[in-house]
Amino acid sequence: MTKENLSIAPETLARFADLLGPKGFTDDPDAIAPWTSDWRGRFHGKAAAILSPADTAEVSAVVGLATELRIPLTPQGGNTSMVGGATPPADGRALILSLRRLNHIRSISAADNIAVCEAGVILSTLHDAADGVGRRFPLSLGAKGSATIGGLISTNAGGTQVLRHGTMRALVDGIEAVLPDGSIFSGLDPLKKDNRGYDIKQLLIGAEGTLGIVTAASLRLVPAIAARAVGWVGVESPAAALDLLRLIEGELGDSVEGFEVVADDGLGHVLDYLPDARCPIETRTPWHVLIEVDHATSGDPTPGERLEAALGKAMEAGIAIDAAIAVNESQADAFWRLRESLSPAEKAQGPALQFDISVPVARMPAFMVEEAAAAMARFPGTTASSFGHLGDGNVHFHVRAPAGTGDGPAWIAAQGKEISAFVHDAVVAAGGSISAEHGIGQMKRAELGRLAGPARLSALRAIKAAFDPLGLMNPEKLIPLPGEG
Amino acid sequence: MTKENLSIAPETLARFADLLGPKGFTDDPDAIAPWTSDWRGRFHGKAAAILSPADTAEVSAVVGLATELRIPLTPQGGNTSMVGGATPPADGRALILSLRRLNHIRSISAADNIAVCEAGVILSTLHDAADGVGRRFPLSLGAKGSATIGGLISTNAGGTQVLRHGTMRALVDGIEAVLPDGSIFSGLDPLKKDNRGYDIKQLLIGAEGTLGIVTAASLRLVPAIAARAVGWVGVESPAAALDLLRLIEGELGDSVEGFEVVADDGLGHVLDYLPDARCPIETRTPWHVLIEVDHATSGDPTPGERLEAALGKAMEAGIAIDAAIAVNESQADAFWRLRESLSPAEKAQGPALQFDISVPVARMPAFMVEEAAAAMARFPGTTASSFGHLGDGNVHFHVRAPAGTGDGPAWIAAQGKEISAFVHDAVVAAGGSISAEHGIGQMKRAELGRLAGPARLSALRAIKAAFDPLGLMNPEKLIPLPGEG
Repeated sequence: MTKENLSIAPETLARFADLLGPKGFTDDPDAIAPWTSDWRGRFHGKAAAILSPADTAEVSAVVGLATELRIPLTPQGGNTSMVGGATPPADGRALILSLRRLNHIRSISAADNIAVCEAGVILSTLHDAADGVGRRFPLSLGAKGSATIGGLISTNAGGTQVLRHGTMRALVDGIEAVLPDGSIFSGLDPLKKDNRGYDIKQLLIGAEGTLGIVTAASLRLVPAIAARAVGWVGVESPAAALDLLRLIEGELGDSVEGFEVVADDGLGHVLDYLPDARCPIETRTPWHVLIEVDHATSGDPTPGERLEAALGKAMEAGIAIDAAIAVNESQADAFWRLRESLSPAEKAQGPALQFDISVPVARMPAFMVEEAAAAMARFPGTTASSFGHLGDGNVHFHVRAPAGTGDGPAWIAAQGKEISAFVHDAVVAAGGSISAEHGIGQMKRAELGRLAGPARLSALRAIKAAFDPLGLMNPEKLIPLPGEG
Repeated sequence: MTKENLSIAPETLARFADLLGPKGFTDDPDAIAPWTSDWRGRFHGKAAAILSPADTAEVSAVVGLATELRIPLTPQGGNTSMVGGATPPADGRALILSLRRLNHIRSISAADNIAVCEAGVILSTLHDAADGVGRRFPLSLGAKGSATIGGLISTNAGGTQVLRHGTMRALVDGIEAVLPDGSIFSGLDPLKKDNRGYDIKQLLIGAEGTLGIVTAASLRLVPAIAARAVGWVGVESPAAALDLLRLIEGELGDSVEGFEVVADDGLGHVLDYLPDARCPIETRTPWHVLIEVDHATSGDPTPGERLEAALGKAMEAGIAIDAAIAVNESQADAFWRLRESLSPAEKAQGPALQFDISVPVARMPAFMVEEAAAAMARFPGTTASSFGHLGDGNVHFHVRAPAGTGDGPAWIAAQGKEISAFVHDAVVAAGGSISAEHGIGQMKRAELGRLAGPARLSALRAIKAAFDPLGLMNPEKLIPLPGEG
């Protein structure tokens, strides 16, 4: 590949190269190429260089220089965004600001249940470090081997443990960031109570790097799991699944850590996809629930005994049709493998549009049933279904192309916009969010502009303009463009 | 009292009177007078009228008119601010915007664990309503009979249940607010996951009415308490108290709802103040801890049995010196009465300066001991001590005037600024916050300006200017003035 200087003058690049030295600067096109597209290959940009500062002071210097020279920056961690949030603009006017060299766990304390991590620490590295001190960091997701702490904070990431432990927002006790003027916001001290005005920490969480660069965070650890029980329950409907959740919570309190719902046809796809797998219960009920209960202490009664008693009550009450509890860890893992294989199994069924949406929990059971039917009626031949975190009011809602559709991209190009608008309109009508977990990035920006109310849109734009009047922080992300809404 | 039109023209007042009608407008000086000072009588302002809209639409109209006419508004709920946050400016240029007529609980659902309350609902009214549906709202404080939901949200209120349930921030699942341009931000739908950009809800919580007017909120309810155990434990030091908390949390998980620490001399003042009270344990240890453990389900083992087992381990480990568990509800109430009498008992000892501060939990034990000693050394004759929410890293730190000081206000006038600066400097040095629970209001504004770092100050000012460029929302509160920092 050959160098393109794009719109950035060589003397400008030289300023950054001088500032960061050879370890912190590359303009080698082959080194840059993997980082100019998202991992799903949907978004493509250009960048003349990757800037890789080594520490917070260097991030501050880079941001200060970028502001002086009016060069936009696209911050990047593991480049695992689901919405094109880390892909630079197509015109090459921005440089990539990689946080991957800020990869130190500055401190970790079991006594205080706190890990202070730099932005570039990879999630699985933090998991291992917490494990090493007898604690755990209770947030995980598929990309844990690549996703970085800075990116997880900037997208307010979720996962399967949100029901009990919340999203990233609930796990960040303190934050350090470089603001667009290059100043360092030093808020790492983990204060449980702090009412010194607007919560800048909360504002930076989920801001997708558009207000500044998160450089480090104090993250909350929780006790390691001493004992767990994993159950599989067959139910009649999503409404019964929600009744089951309420019953289980009433019996087991805060110890319910996983509660995932899947339709029987989704399970069928998984069983086709995993030839050695089997349905954990004998009855093939219309819907299924995976439950995990965790205790930090082992003792009487065990989580398994407590879950068994609760499921007994659910059967008596007619909420559960059939149920099984994993008899050992390997069976528990097998239950979870069914859940974790849903995405690839659905993918094997053919091209589909996937929506990461939320509605108030109480409305979700009806939404799952009624909106799937409505989508299939509106777009004949498609198959619509959803699965996931019912207890969070968040499911993955899929609309699959008609059977036999060979060219997925062509189908998406032809139908995607209309189907997306249909699903998003239903979400808004149900009081929900068109982005539950993944953020807005560039993928959902126009839809946010179309659907956000005027008060929300003007607040988003006012905050952006206040922090970043030159528009240099992660350009073309999150904030709808003037024509969009 | 006679009417003063202050700086507001009669025709301007007439516009508001016409808009709101007789129930929503008063310029009667006798009706206004109680609301122009804070309840502790420290801050005094003036206002030509109180505006009392009946619903969100009227709030929107009032704010729109105020913006059109450039009239500042001082929002007010129960007027229970500890920092002068609801007192209008002294020059009378602002009108009071009372939210007290927005006093409806729009809906309450035990199944969904949600109550949708308007801003003027009084906290104890919500407690009763939650109780009526078999749930509870787990935040309480001394002013619960006057404090309103809007004020509690706008100050991110705390209390004694924060350890388990968090501050108001953790209990607000959705928010409705009128922004300074009169637009209505409709965010009441309780979404557990919502990544549509900057979290406007979080920004409005704790904003003290300076960015807009909170008109309603969706609040999280939790299960009613089925069984509780209350214990009193004697320990050697705050450090031992923190070790005790960690041990108890390890044994009892998330069920620890109260953990309050008090020095033995503070307990002595309470016992002097309450002649019929006695120390719950036989040994008078240097420090004492009050613990409450709550279960939503009654069953084996009971909270009392579990707490007893945990305290047994604490005694074996040498962490606890002596311990008692209340044998019935009336004894449990008597334990709590000791804690709740600390403020009046301390007050009876003579004039004092009180500081609402937080530091990281791990640093709090040393802070309590060392900074009390440092303050007494620096200001001879004073007595410094602290008590409260050790598990939140938040204590009430008091510096009492030398024995025999007759004129409290004169002592405060002479010494207050210097002592405040001394304590606040120590808090900042320990990585803490000069306002843990009470907010900034007008009382702590100058100290925030002196002590906040430049990045924090410029972020606060940028957000304020972005939302409220005319400076009409709760003027002279929270944001340090140009000369202040």
